Amino acid sequence: MKSGELLMYNSLSRQKEVFKPIQEGYVGMYVCGPTVYNDVHLGNCRTFISFDIIYRYLTYLGYQVRYVRNITDVGHLLDDGEDRMSKGARLDNLEPMEVAQKYTNGFHDIMRTFNTLSPGIEPRATGHIPEQIEMVTEILKNGLAYEKNGSVYFDTVKYAEKTGEYGKLSGRVIDELLSETRDNLKNQDEKNHPSDFAIWMKASDEHIMKWNSPWSVGFPGWHLECSAMSTKYLGKKFDIHGGGHDLKFPHHENEIAQNVGACNCQPANYWLHTNMLLMNGKKMSKSDGNTISPQELFTGASEHVSKGYHPMVVRFFMLQSHYRSTNDLTDEGLQAAEKGFKRIM
Amino acid sequence: MKSGELLMYNSLSRQKEVFKPIQEGYVGMYVCGPTVYNDVHLGNCRTFISFDIIYRYLTYLGYQVRYVRNITDVGHLLDDGEDRMSKGARLDNLEPMEVAQKYTNGFHDIMRTFNTLSPGIEPRATGHIPEQIEMVTEILKNGLAYEKNGSVYFDTVKYAEKTGEYGKLSGRVIDELLSETRDNLKNQDEKNHPSDFAIWMKASDEHIMKWNSPWSVGFPGWHLECSAMSTKYLGKKFDIHGGGHDLKFPHHENEIAQNVGACNCQPANYWLHTNMLLMNGKKMSKSDGNTISPQELFTGASEHVSKGYHPMVVRFFMLQSHYRSTNDLTDEGLQAAEKGFKRIM
Repeated sequence: MKSGELLMYNSLSRQKEVFKPIQEGYVGMYVCGPTVYNDVHLGNCRTFISFDIIYRYLTYLGYQVRYVRNITDVGHLLDDGEDRMSKGARLDNLEPMEVAQKYTNGFHDIMRTFNTLSPGIEPRATGHIPEQIEMVTEILKNGLAYEKNGSVYFDTVKYAEKTGEYGKLSGRVIDELLSETRDNLKNQDEKNHPSDFAIWMKASDEHIMKWNSPWSVGFPGWHLECSAMSTKYLGKKFDIHGGGHDLKFPHHENEIAQNVGACNCQPANYWLHTNMLLMNGKKMSKSDGNTISPQELFTGASEHVSKGYHPMVVRFFMLQSHYRSTNDLTDEGLQAAEKGFKRIM
Repeated sequence: MKSGELLMYNSLSRQKEVFKPIQEGYVGMYVCGPTVYNDVHLGNCRTFISFDIIYRYLTYLGYQVRYVRNITDVGHLLDDGEDRMSKGARLDNLEPMEVAQKYTNGFHDIMRTFNTLSPGIEPRATGHIPEQIEMVTEILKNGLAYEKNGSVYFDTVKYAEKTGEYGKLSGRVIDELLSETRDNLKNQDEKNHPSDFAIWMKASDEHIMKWNSPWSVGFPGWHLECSAMSTKYLGKKFDIHGGGHDLKFPHHENEIAQNVGACNCQPANYWLHTNMLLMNGKKMSKSDGNTISPQELFTGASEHVSKGYHPMVVRFFMLQSHYRSTNDLTDEGLQAAEKGFKRIM
């Protein structure tokens, strides 16, 4: 083990802390991975490249790191309402897993192109339905969730009363959440409070991906998978939880609530969040045309760059800014990175 | 769609048959994939290269092919008997999924090196526990299985009586099976008949991978995953089922029994089996030293070859014999394949 202290900015305490692993010589790290119903965004790539460096650095320091990064493959694709299974072979139908596999492969290709190491475990959300159902059962048993018409909701008000901590990570308070979430969530009328969130959803007939559960044929709420899979592979309490800045709320806030609700334990000691990738000083956005894909960046097939850049130049460019700072992608910046990269190679 | 008939040798009927898909223009194909607790053998590579050609040829003919190849990641690794979950983080413990991920990545690397296309869906056995539990429930409901001490066994005698078909694929009869299986199977005393096989196994305390079920905390029998996953992604009845010759019995025989037992339907219309890869005229075998790994073959680091061969030369060599014939790997054969490959490139 290399000597010296490692300092980490912990989003939960909002300060730099000396890193001290739970178990001497070992690090457990969970990073929220991609949703595989689209090509991966360059901003996501920045997150995974950042955690690749953190993973490599911890390993370099001498830690044995168990690095878990999930694949979110629970899809919300809709069918024509016919029951596929009862119809036997129906190969002309949309099969969500075929879509998920295609984009999982594409994601792996891009990660390989960026020379990131594979995580030690890459669990899929659909592959952990029993674990998620068990977690819902625990939360219900602990009185922090309620069932309505086959769906199960996490009771944020009770949780806040009991722990005083809902919103601790993101710095939000329940009253703010109330107004924010009032209009943009489904099944609002089933909830006791607008900030409550689904941990199990009853599926409509058209919903293709669904599983049996004690409450309904349905599917897990989006936040649940990370709680269940991090607990399964790293334990109730582990060292580092990472992800993009935009996942702080609601995803990570709700993850914490679920873990406390099921295991009475805040899951991770250190929460690390990567900041945004901008382009030409502005947020990337498809509707504004201010966007570029990894492939366009490599080939130069975009109005935003004068030429194509080698993936290692892009990686080098991204690593020139700290992961907690925004990173502004510009053609000039990439050209400078290319020169710098050539110099050190 | 290209014109002309496609003939396939069907292991089930033991003759060449004209290929006729269930649904015009579509093909559903399931191939038994690797077990990911070891490096993939060159013989397995031959199987997957052969089905890669079949997949490509069907696509070339104009079919839209849904190609499913599973990953067998249910491991049988043992722990020290302590409950990991209750202990919280235990990063120094063996985590079977970390082992499975390592060899899954290695398998993907080798498949990419051999220029095989990814299957459209690559389901993992551990990712389909609910589907397997449901299949056991169906077989029990249909009276073709029985529970003993938390394990569930398929009743081959009742199945044979009912269908008259146990052993149809492999050409074995129950009396032969009786003597063959008498000595080499665990929990023999729990079975009504020695040829019965487990579809759910109660786990011992040391067994790491285990799940809740109506019968016990345990794990699915090995044959079950393919029945459950082919049904899920291709339907109760699909076109082609493939795998290595050595899987005919017991794996594929039992798969058929399970599908008939659960869905009253023999799953595939065409059963395709690849033959063995030999080396220097003999079966490959580690204990005899008559073995070579893909890497040794590529680098030449083996007493069995005079030099390394490019993966495309090895692929070309393998494709020079029909997949139903044995394929004899020799240094002379590889040299000839190298010349032939250079000529056509």
